[in-house]
Amino acid sequence: MTNTTQTEPMQTASGKINAGRYFENFRLNEVIQHATPRTITAGDAALYIALAGSRNPLHCSAPFAHALGYASTPIDDLLAFHIAFGKTVPDISVNAVANLGYADVRFLQPVFAGDTLATSSTVIGLKQNSSGKNGVVYVRSTTTNQNQQPVLSWVRWVMVHKKDLAAPAPETVIPALPAHVSAENLCVPQQFTARGFETRATGGTYFWEDYQVGERIDHPAGMTINESDHALATRLYQNNARLHFDNHMMQSSTFGKRLVYGGIVISACRTLSHEGLENALAILAINAGTHANPCFAGDTIYSFTEVLERWELPNRKDAGALRLRMVGIKNATPAEIAEIKPAGSYHPNVVLDLDYTVLMPRKGNQ
Amino acid sequence: MTNTTQTEPMQTASGKINAGRYFENFRLNEVIQHATPRTITAGDAALYIALAGSRNPLHCSAPFAHALGYASTPIDDLLAFHIAFGKTVPDISVNAVANLGYADVRFLQPVFAGDTLATSSTVIGLKQNSSGKNGVVYVRSTTTNQNQQPVLSWVRWVMVHKKDLAAPAPETVIPALPAHVSAENLCVPQQFTARGFETRATGGTYFWEDYQVGERIDHPAGMTINESDHALATRLYQNNARLHFDNHMMQSSTFGKRLVYGGIVISACRTLSHEGLENALAILAINAGTHANPCFAGDTIYSFTEVLERWELPNRKDAGALRLRMVGIKNATPAEIAEIKPAGSYHPNVVLDLDYTVLMPRKGNQ
Amino acid sequence: MTNTTQTEPMQTASGKINAGRYFENFRLNEVIQHATPRTITAGDAALYIALAGSRNPLHCSAPFAHALGYASTPIDDLLAFHIAFGKTVPDISVNAVANLGYADVRFLQPVFAGDTLATSSTVIGLKQNSSGKNGVVYVRSTTTNQNQQPVLSWVRWVMVHKKDLAAPAPETVIPALPAHVSAENLCVPQQFTARGFETRATGGTYFWEDYQVGERIDHPAGMTINESDHALATRLYQNNARLHFDNHMMQSSTFGKRLVYGGIVISACRTLSHEGLENALAILAINAGTHANPCFAGDTIYSFTEVLERWELPNRKDAGALRLRMVGIKNATPAEIAEIKPAGSYHPNVVLDLDYTVLMPRKGNQ
Repeated sequence: MTNTTQTEPMQTASGKINAGRYFENFRLNEVIQHATPRTITAGDAALYIALAGSRNPLHCSAPFAHALGYASTPIDDLLAFHIAFGKTVPDISVNAVANLGYADVRFLQPVFAGDTLATSSTVIGLKQNSSGKNGVVYVRSTTTNQNQQPVLSWVRWVMVHKKDLAAPAPETVIPALPAHVSAENLCVPQQFTARGFETRATGGTYFWEDYQVGERIDHPAGMTINESDHALATRLYQNNARLHFDNHMMQSSTFGKRLVYGGIVISACRTLSHEGLENALAILAINAGTHANPCFAGDTIYSFTEVLERWELPNRKDAGALRLRMVGIKNATPAEIAEIKPAGSYHPNVVLDLDYTVLMPRKGNQ
Repeated sequence: MTNTTQTEPMQTASGKINAGRYFENFRLNEVIQHATPRTITAGDAALYIALAGSRNPLHCSAPFAHALGYASTPIDDLLAFHIAFGKTVPDISVNAVANLGYADVRFLQPVFAGDTLATSSTVIGLKQNSSGKNGVVYVRSTTTNQNQQPVLSWVRWVMVHKKDLAAPAPETVIPALPAHVSAENLCVPQQFTARGFETRATGGTYFWEDYQVGERIDHPAGMTINESDHALATRLYQNNARLHFDNHMMQSSTFGKRLVYGGIVISACRTLSHEGLENALAILAINAGTHANPCFAGDTIYSFTEVLERWELPNRKDAGALRLRMVGIKNATPAEIAEIKPAGSYHPNVVLDLDYTVLMPRKGNQ
Repeated sequence: MTNTTQTEPMQTASGKINAGRYFENFRLNEVIQHATPRTITAGDAALYIALAGSRNPLHCSAPFAHALGYASTPIDDLLAFHIAFGKTVPDISVNAVANLGYADVRFLQPVFAGDTLATSSTVIGLKQNSSGKNGVVYVRSTTTNQNQQPVLSWVRWVMVHKKDLAAPAPETVIPALPAHVSAENLCVPQQFTARGFETRATGGTYFWEDYQVGERIDHPAGMTINESDHALATRLYQNNARLHFDNHMMQSSTFGKRLVYGGIVISACRTLSHEGLENALAILAINAGTHANPCFAGDTIYSFTEVLERWELPNRKDAGALRLRMVGIKNATPAEIAEIKPAGSYHPNVVLDLDYTVLMPRKGNQ
C-alpha cells in the first residue's frame, strides 16, 4: 500500500528510549515479536461502531451471527486488522521514509470478544536503495489468538532510513508476492454458513450472482472525518505513529498538520460501501492498495466500488467471493471525479485505491 | 416532533443502491422490517456515559439497579430509544422533507446488555399534500427484544417527497393520536421497586411529592456539543442520515454545515436536568416534542423543566409519575431567554420543547 | 495539586438545585457520601485506551495479567482514579476558588470490570482565609469496591467560597501530610508477582535496577488534546465541573474558553512516558502535584521524567518501586524548555509537575 508520507529520520533518543530499527538493523529471516498483546472486548466492538459507523449485522447482532454458524458475534474484520497492524508500528515503521505497500492480507479466523491477539513479523526481503541512505524492508506479519491459531497474515514493505550510512548493504532479496489472494487460498470461516442468512437483517437484496464483473457502484453517502474521530480510533488500535497525534511536530512537516491514519480511510470507505454491498458480510483478503493522497481531519470521504472478479468458492454453494476495487475520494462525490488516474497518476482527491475480496451469500442456497 | 430541516429529494441512485421509499411507495397497513438488529453491550453503555454525560446510577451501578429490583443494570432509556429509532431512518425518512413529529412514545421494558433490538414499522396514516409534490406518512414503530417482547413503541410522522409526481394520491387516513400517554398506559418496569431506593446514590433529596405542578427548574449547567461528540453518538445509534455526517453535501445546504441529530439534544438536556431532577430514574413516555431550531457543533445547550402533571401510578405507592416539559436552549441560559415563544413562534435560541413523563420514588414508601 | 483556575462563586440556584457546599457548610470530621456509584465495565477500559492511548499490557491483555497473578485484567490505575475523583466534585469543589493540592494518594487494590466504586470524604482540616471571603477545606477521600474494600485513598485541599460572609470562622485545623508515601506504606497488589513477567509484552528491556536516581528521560512523542477527546473522557469520569464542558459560560471567564480537566493531562503524560518507562506496570502512589498552567483543546502535550528515588519493597525481590517526577509541557518538546522554573515560578508551557511512585519488575527474579 503506497503511502506518500515522507518523514525525516527520527533523532536518536538518549538513555532509555528505544529509537526503533533502522535499515541496517533488519536481518533476513529475523523474527520480531511485537509488544502489547491485546484482549478484544465488547467495548472495542462498540467503539468501532461509533468510530466507523458500521452497520454490518454480523458484527452487531448475536442472533444474526448465530444464524450464520458463529458461536458469538465476531468483531469487524477491519477492527481486527487495525489492532493487529498497530502492534507492528514501533518495530517496523517508526523510522520509515514511506509505507510502500501491502499484499497477501489474509483473514484466517474470526476474532471474538475475549480473544487475545499478538503479532510477530518475519523479515522476508531487504533491498538497499542506490542512494545508500535507506532501503526497503519486506516483512510477513502474523497475528495469532490465545490458542496460537493464526487469525491474520499479511506482507508489508516499507522504506526505512539508514542511521549508520557506512553499514554494508545486505544481499538483495525481494520476495515473490501474489498479485491477489487466489480463490483457493481464501479462508472462509470454518463455522460460516449462509443457510440461515436473511436479507432483512442487512437491508440488501442483492446476492453474489447479482454482481457483474465490470459493474461500478457509486456509494451515495459521504462521511466527514473529525479530528477526534481519527485520533480516538488510532489510539484504540494502539498505533502510536506520531504523525497522527502530534500536531506540534506536524506543524513543521510538509503537511503542516496531522495526517489521518490510512486505516481510518479504509474503514470509512467500507462503511460507506454498505449502501450497495449490504451483503458483503466478511472480508476474506486485501490484495493490494494505495493511499494515493493524504487525508486530513475535516475531509469528507466518498467511495465507489468496481467488481473485478466473481469467484465460486471451493466446496460450497451457499456463498461466493467477489474481488472488488474500492476507491476512496475526498471532498468530491464519485460523479464529480471524471478520471481517477487522469495522466497516469492519481487525481488529487483520490485517497484510496484498494483491491480486496469479500464473502457474499449466493441465491441458490438460502 | 417538528424538525425544521428541509432537504432536497435524494437523486435516484443507479444500480445496487436502495434509494429508499418515496411517498407513493408507502401503503396503508404495510409492515416494514428494518435492517440492522443490534445486540446491546456494556460497551454501548460506557460510550453513552462518555457521550451524554449521564449520572443516573440506575444505568451505571449494578448494586443500585439490584436494590431497585433489576437483575442487572438496564441501559439508559434514551440510548435504547436512539438505537431503536436509528433503524427506521433508511426506510422511513431517507427521502423526508421534514420530520414532523413523534407521539405516544412508550418505554415498555428495560433493555439490558445482551438484549438484541429489532425494529419494525407499520404505516398507519397517509396524506398527500395539496402541492402533489409530497405527502405525510404516519408510522407506528415497535422495537422488540430477542424474546419478541416489545420494549419500545412510538408513532412518528414525516413529510416525504414524491418521486413519481403522476402517481395517484392515496386515500387520506390520519390516525388518532393521544395528546399524551395517560397514567394508566404507562409501563413501570415489572421488576421495579422503590423500596430499596437511597438518595445518596443519586445525590438528590427531592421525591415525587416535592414537585409541584407549575414549578419551573432552571438547570444550571450547560454542555457544548463538539463535532466528534455528535458524530460518534449518531454512528453509535447506526442512524445514517447523511445530514449529520456529510459536510461536503451540507456545505451546499441552507445551513452550510452538518446538523446535529435531534436525539443528541434530547440526551444533553436530559443529562443537564439531572441537577434538579436527580431522582427521575426512568423515562416512561415521550408525549410530544418539537425541535424548534437546528443545533450545530459548537452550540452550548442549556435547559429548564416545567412540571406539567403529577400522577399517582395504578397499584403502587412506592413511586409516581411526573409529566414534564423540558426546554432546550442554545448559547444562552434559561434566565437569558425572556420568552420561549415570544410571538407565537419559538425564540431562535430554543432548540427543543419536549413533553415527557418520568418515574420518581415517593416519600411514603422508602 | 495546585490548580491555577479561579472561578467566581456560583450563583445560588433556586428551588430544587443543590448549590453545593460553601466554606461555612463544611464541619470538621464530617463524612460526605458522594453520589453516583459506578460499576466498571470492559466498555470503560476500551474507551480509556481510545482516549488516553495506553499501551500497558497489564490493562489490555488477559494472559499478561494472568501471568502476573491477577485473576483478570485490572483497569488502568488512572481510569480508576479519575472515576473515583469525579464523584467528589459536586460535593467538594463545585464552589471552589481553586484546587490547591493532592497528597498521599494511595492505590490500595486493583479494580476489575464488574467492580462497583463508591467514594466518601471526611473533612480533616479547615482554615478560613484572612480575607474572610473563603477558606481552605482538607478532605480525605476513600473509594471502596462492592466488597467494602478500600481501593483508593487520597487527601485533597481546595479553597472554597463563603456564601454567608457573617458565618463564624471555624477553628483552624491543618492536617499533617506526608511529603510522599513511604516505601513501607505502598500497597503492592496482593496477587502481584513479577515472576511471570516478560519484556516482549511491554516492548521495554529496562528493569528497576536500570534506573538511576537523578536520571532524566525525555519521552519523544507528543499528543494533541482535541476538544472531544477531553470532553468525552471527563464525562466518562462523570466529573461534571462546568468549566470543562460549558463554552458559553467559559467565554466570559478569564480564559475565554473551556479548560481541560487536569486528569486528562496526567493521563496523556503517563501514556507518553511509556516510551522509556515501558515496565512501569502500576502506579502505587501519587505524592504531590501541580497543574502549573492551564491546558486547552488544541494543545500538544509532551513530557519528561526524572528518577527521584529507587526503593526496595518490603519482603519482595521480584519488583521494586521508583519515585518519579513527571513533567508535562504544552506546545514544546522537553528539549525546547531550558528551565522548568526559570525564576522560581513555572515556565508558561509547563502544565504538570507530578511526583508519583511506580511498581517495576526487578532483574533478579524473572
